[in-house]
Amino acid sequence: MNSSLSDVSAASARYLDDLQVGDRFTSAEHALDEAQIKSFAAQFDPQPFHLDPEAAKATLFGGLAASGWHTAAITMRLLVGGGLPLAGGIIGAGGEISWPKPTRPGDVLHVETEVVSVTPSRSRPDRGMVVVRSETRNQHGDVLQQSVYKLVVPRRL
Amino acid sequence: MNSSLSDVSAASARYLDDLQVGDRFTSAEHALDEAQIKSFAAQFDPQPFHLDPEAAKATLFGGLAASGWHTAAITMRLLVGGGLPLAGGIIGAGGEISWPKPTRPGDVLHVETEVVSVTPSRSRPDRGMVVVRSETRNQHGDVLQQSVYKLVVPRRL
Repeated sequence: MNSSLSDVSAASARYLDDLQVGDRFTSAEHALDEAQIKSFAAQFDPQPFHLDPEAAKATLFGGLAASGWHTAAITMRLLVGGGLPLAGGIIGAGGEISWPKPTRPGDVLHVETEVVSVTPSRSRPDRGMVVVRSETRNQHGDVLQQSVYKLVVPRRL
Repeated sequence: MNSSLSDVSAASARYLDDLQVGDRFTSAEHALDEAQIKSFAAQFDPQPFHLDPEAAKATLFGGLAASGWHTAAITMRLLVGGGLPLAGGIIGAGGEISWPKPTRPGDVLHVETEVVSVTPSRSRPDRGMVVVRSETRNQHGDVLQQSVYKLVVPRRL
């Protein structure tokens, strides 16, 4: 849980050639509070269950919950901050995402990531595609977001 | 393109029972500039190609590009702002997302959405699942994001 990298140094950044299926990485942590949830929602997802704790009680969420896109953005911040140390940065072509449980005020998030596949490009010898599966969990171990990303990763030349 | 709803009134909000496969909706527009791109990136995706136009030139993007999660968040804002007028709001269980082209400073985004499936819940008579496919496009018609969302939508009771 707390063995996370706090930053990606040049020495630790992985190229495609350094990655193997099953490699695992754990991010640092991010503590989420009501103010952050409301601020993100006001800008990008202004719905009552993300903005107003009182109004949220009468909704499907039963209380204030973060926008799923807020959870996704925090997940990206944790991956970029050392949770997935890739040479060239984290460049996603797309992926799948789901939110099995709401993210709540007071949740402390971290991201656990596993390499699913590593595929050198046939046409571009300088890069390849890496698929990873990430779980964003809170301090209780609840899985708040599951995601699969297709990433473009450079090769050692 | 410009026939978008600017807000969801109670009268226009669709329940599950009102939706049919093939129904289409178009959002309002959002104009993106360099300051917004840098601001989102500083908070959630601090990588050179999202923060620094000069440094971005030497990367895969060839110039400043918005974080994909920023494009996703703006897409949500446009859907919530009338681009997808659902009763009960837009509550996503998950989905798929891809970014065929980078989102750039100066892009004016809108979202075109089509209903793919409508499935009443067997166990919960008050709701069901609606799958929609959205394309986020700029003013030139370029598709910047393709997404498929699974949404929980209430029924008329």
